Amino acid sequence: MAEPSSTALEALRDQIDQADQELLQVLRRRLDLVAQVGTIKHQEGLPIYAPKREATMLAKRRSEAEAMGVSPQLIEDLLRRMMRESYVSEKDVGFKRINPELGPVVIIGGGGKLGGLFAHLFELSGYEVRIFEQQDWGNADAILAGAGVVLVSVPIDVTEQIIAQLPPLPSDCLLVDLTSIKQAPLAAMLKAHSGPVMGLHPMFGPDVASLAKQVVVVCHGRGAEKYQWLLEQITIWGARLHEASATEHDQAMQLVQAMRHFTAFVYGMHLKREHADIEQLLQFSSPIYRLELAMVGRLFAQDASLYADIIFSQPDSLVRARHYLERYQQALEMLESGDKEGFNRTFANVANWFGDFAQQFQHESANMLMMANDSRSG
Amino acid sequence: MAEPSSTALEALRDQIDQADQELLQVLRRRLDLVAQVGTIKHQEGLPIYAPKREATMLAKRRSEAEAMGVSPQLIEDLLRRMMRESYVSEKDVGFKRINPELGPVVIIGGGGKLGGLFAHLFELSGYEVRIFEQQDWGNADAILAGAGVVLVSVPIDVTEQIIAQLPPLPSDCLLVDLTSIKQAPLAAMLKAHSGPVMGLHPMFGPDVASLAKQVVVVCHGRGAEKYQWLLEQITIWGARLHEASATEHDQAMQLVQAMRHFTAFVYGMHLKREHADIEQLLQFSSPIYRLELAMVGRLFAQDASLYADIIFSQPDSLVRARHYLERYQQALEMLESGDKEGFNRTFANVANWFGDFAQQFQHESANMLMMANDSRSG
Repeated sequence: MAEPSSTALEALRDQIDQADQELLQVLRRRLDLVAQVGTIKHQEGLPIYAPKREATMLAKRRSEAEAMGVSPQLIEDLLRRMMRESYVSEKDVGFKRINPELGPVVIIGGGGKLGGLFAHLFELSGYEVRIFEQQDWGNADAILAGAGVVLVSVPIDVTEQIIAQLPPLPSDCLLVDLTSIKQAPLAAMLKAHSGPVMGLHPMFGPDVASLAKQVVVVCHGRGAEKYQWLLEQITIWGARLHEASATEHDQAMQLVQAMRHFTAFVYGMHLKREHADIEQLLQFSSPIYRLELAMVGRLFAQDASLYADIIFSQPDSLVRARHYLERYQQALEMLESGDKEGFNRTFANVANWFGDFAQQFQHESANMLMMANDSRSG
Repeated sequence: MAEPSSTALEALRDQIDQADQELLQVLRRRLDLVAQVGTIKHQEGLPIYAPKREATMLAKRRSEAEAMGVSPQLIEDLLRRMMRESYVSEKDVGFKRINPELGPVVIIGGGGKLGGLFAHLFELSGYEVRIFEQQDWGNADAILAGAGVVLVSVPIDVTEQIIAQLPPLPSDCLLVDLTSIKQAPLAAMLKAHSGPVMGLHPMFGPDVASLAKQVVVVCHGRGAEKYQWLLEQITIWGARLHEASATEHDQAMQLVQAMRHFTAFVYGMHLKREHADIEQLLQFSSPIYRLELAMVGRLFAQDASLYADIIFSQPDSLVRARHYLERYQQALEMLESGDKEGFNRTFANVANWFGDFAQQFQHESANMLMMANDSRSG
């Protein structure tokens, strides 16, 4: 009985092959059409990421899908993945230059990864970019002459010092930094320069394929009307701006960034000292644990000093890290004394405090975990 | 000058709409074709997840895409997402029943979520399923009469006790459990029953849409030749089996599952006590921090006792949790004393220990983070 059904299977698979050919062709055509949209956006200076247009389009597709008995979530997920591709190719078309009068953009630390990304984006937008590296201090006046923007993208632990070292800048020049803490660098810039000053924190790594949907935190310094164009320029690159005070920003970063880096660091140490067998752990791992191992392991593929600096740069994050230790100790004592009731009570309190976010996070992460599972192979 | 380009934009968007219509139609057709494949697989008793066939198909599509100037990763991601949809619909077709002679499958705790999922899968495969709940002990002999499988799916802290409470089972009946620890339940089952015994740990939550690609850990107990059919049945459901000793399994779970639950619990406590403003944290968050917050928050959307039991059930995990505390303390002291060199040295040691996995994890997580970013809206 195997014969007929295996023939039927073959025939069906041929038809699937054919459907996939058509799929590829539609995809190719769609990418081309979106590229043409990108060219117009480029000419008009429209942002590559248009949240409203995107939401409207997705809602329309979802209902069309539903009418055809196709899962709305399926078509949404597929379209979102295609849109990512389009953002990346739109980026390569270049961007409209918002400030045609601007003098050169000098990027201090432009040879680094993040500085290099911004250098590239400014160049794609038609600005003259000058890279300023350690060996260029002897030539600083010449490089900085007539600068329209000086962008500081150097390791945290030398940011303030480098800002203080700058020669006087043209009075209308914008001084801006990309450091992942904001209070100290902003204060240093306001002290070093009497013209427009702004602090930025790009909430993404230099390896992003495009800025679409990425968040850039904006901390205003001085003369906001003089750098409005740059915020508009960043929006055209696709990013979303989030304005905050430097204090708010730094506090949030202590709770999220510094703590997560630090606990991941300790977890890595712990795995090593417990002689964990990573290969074996992966054999056992569900998508959720695999993802968590990956989030820890990825830290160690990166530059130690990057993390050390983020953690060491803020005395307040040490205070919070000490608080975390105390809480860990309390929780561990509950376990060690077999105080299940205490554990359950604390759990309920925290759950209550999370409120609706707990449900929302469960939903969000379930989706992510399904995607992680999709990516598994043999 | 806005007029002509906005007309051009409109025209392009109409064409994109049209392309999307075609896309939807191809998608509908592909889903139907795959459903037909599913019906044949069902008749033949072939697994819904066929790693080799999938890998071959993806490799072919990737090279076809490349020939058309479409990113191979794009087509692979789209196809993987479509395949997930197909696994889910194939599941609903039902599965071939591998063991036609088997007596009823009794699921102790079958009213719970995980027990209910297995009840559903057995039913979809044509087995007679009997649910056994707390109130059924008075009627135990009748429910267990002639049972082919007794599947224990109850909270960890009562698993051993419930196993010990079972009346004598038919000598050829398979006794199997789904507990997330394996040594103690397996020993309890071997003691309670002289027939075939096996421990399983499904490495996924009861909310998975299908078992495709999910891992089930198998710990052999006694009489493996008598339950080979069940392993085959689980493979047909789409899962991948990973055989391990109960000791290996439990050690891995202490390092991954118990530690991650516990540190997430402490992190939730910490956020609450630091009066974190979640709404504000999310405003700042990059995909990576949003994901990490979600992984912590999701814990608190779930049942406290589930986690308490996983943590409390193994004295060894307390020893490891104490080790973690010591390491945290050491690392914190390095920070507090400003010992950057010590931090960098430890970082390098751990990075060295992770070896190639660090790179691999970075790559894997980068992909996940792009997907997380895709899902962002307005």
